[in-house]
Amino acid sequence: MGQPLYQKVIDTIVARIGAGELLAGGMLPSETQLAAEIGVSQGTARKALMMLEQHGIVRREQGRGTFVTARTPESSLFNFFRLREDDGTIIRPELIEEKIIQRPASDTERKTLFEKPESVYEIRRIRSLKGAASTIETAVLPAPLFAGIERRAPLPSALYILYQQNYGCIVLRADESIKAIAAGPDEARALKVEEGAPLLRVERLAYDILGRPIERRRSIYRTDQLNYKVTLD
Amino acid sequence: MGQPLYQKVIDTIVARIGAGELLAGGMLPSETQLAAEIGVSQGTARKALMMLEQHGIVRREQGRGTFVTARTPESSLFNFFRLREDDGTIIRPELIEEKIIQRPASDTERKTLFEKPESVYEIRRIRSLKGAASTIETAVLPAPLFAGIERRAPLPSALYILYQQNYGCIVLRADESIKAIAAGPDEARALKVEEGAPLLRVERLAYDILGRPIERRRSIYRTDQLNYKVTLD
Repeated sequence: MGQPLYQKVIDTIVARIGAGELLAGGMLPSETQLAAEIGVSQGTARKALMMLEQHGIVRREQGRGTFVTARTPESSLFNFFRLREDDGTIIRPELIEEKIIQRPASDTERKTLFEKPESVYEIRRIRSLKGAASTIETAVLPAPLFAGIERRAPLPSALYILYQQNYGCIVLRADESIKAIAAGPDEARALKVEEGAPLLRVERLAYDILGRPIERRRSIYRTDQLNYKVTLD
Repeated sequence: MGQPLYQKVIDTIVARIGAGELLAGGMLPSETQLAAEIGVSQGTARKALMMLEQHGIVRREQGRGTFVTARTPESSLFNFFRLREDDGTIIRPELIEEKIIQRPASDTERKTLFEKPESVYEIRRIRSLKGAASTIETAVLPAPLFAGIERRAPLPSALYILYQQNYGCIVLRADESIKAIAAGPDEARALKVEEGAPLLRVERLAYDILGRPIERRRSIYRTDQLNYKVTLD
């Protein structure tokens, strides 16, 4: 029950960044001010700032103060983009097709997404890697949290940057379920493979810095020339 | 060049556990003694002990000392066993077939495994999950580090426990490359699927607590009724 106190501090700061009250490069209140303002101990405020710094959201400068980073390092966001060439090179995807719709949430979506939304946005994108259609991604977002996202199309390649810069949702963790599947007719057509060809299916539930499940995503990948890379520890 | 000093301390302690000089439940020398003995600062000895504690290798008891844990918690080792049922239940594998051979290392094996071994052990196992043959695993180990492993057959289900208890190799991290592949004739026969059926192929390079690459493993999974689960953060 209830979230730890430092999350309250993180929440406040992230909400201000999301709302544009704290701009990139802007200075945060001091630990003492934050603690007084939010009603927590100075140690709690410090812990929150350390976590935000660890995740690249703020930067502390000795003797000067704490500043909102211009932008979360791409390396941190690309941590969630796991496709690599056989030699380990990261691959830049190119958008082929994008469709955004708003629709009623399914039972599973209502059960698993933050605040049990009645309505969700579905973003379906086909992307090419190395010149060949290689991925079909379907991201599902709670509509209340991402109001108006359909008017931002075409969306940037890295959705998590959009979530952070425009909705204050900083994705920090994702649970994935991976299977090998046989291409059905739609997948075969979109990815230009034969029906029955092996494809990698990754189902992801992404959590933001507040531990809120904010996105369900199903990705179908052709892996004949690519690898899905993960590290366990 | 050279490893950090705390690794020297970890190395010494792990080697003594591996050699049976330090037994489960046994007490370690104090920080001061360790530091003097190995020729490092007390802070370095403390850092090494903290890392060993974090990984469940030792346990520090307030006012009493530091003790070798009876055994690394299974939860830590099972972190590397990622197959789950659709509802998230962990699945206990059963051995169907096991073959251990010693053979010359391939070029890639020599290049990537610890101490560039000329000779490797290859452990090939077929295991069933939920009553159906579901995994083909081929683990390749540097022969000098795992001398005599072929005489320990049949090996326990969790190889990493064997590596730790008998060879002092504590696996802490693994890099994986995942693809969907079509079953070839051998895989189809072993897993009782049709040729061309989609299978999940996971290629893993596992590192021990000293950062040494000690095992290459290729696992082929039937995922029609199972999931490969990972967490990104």
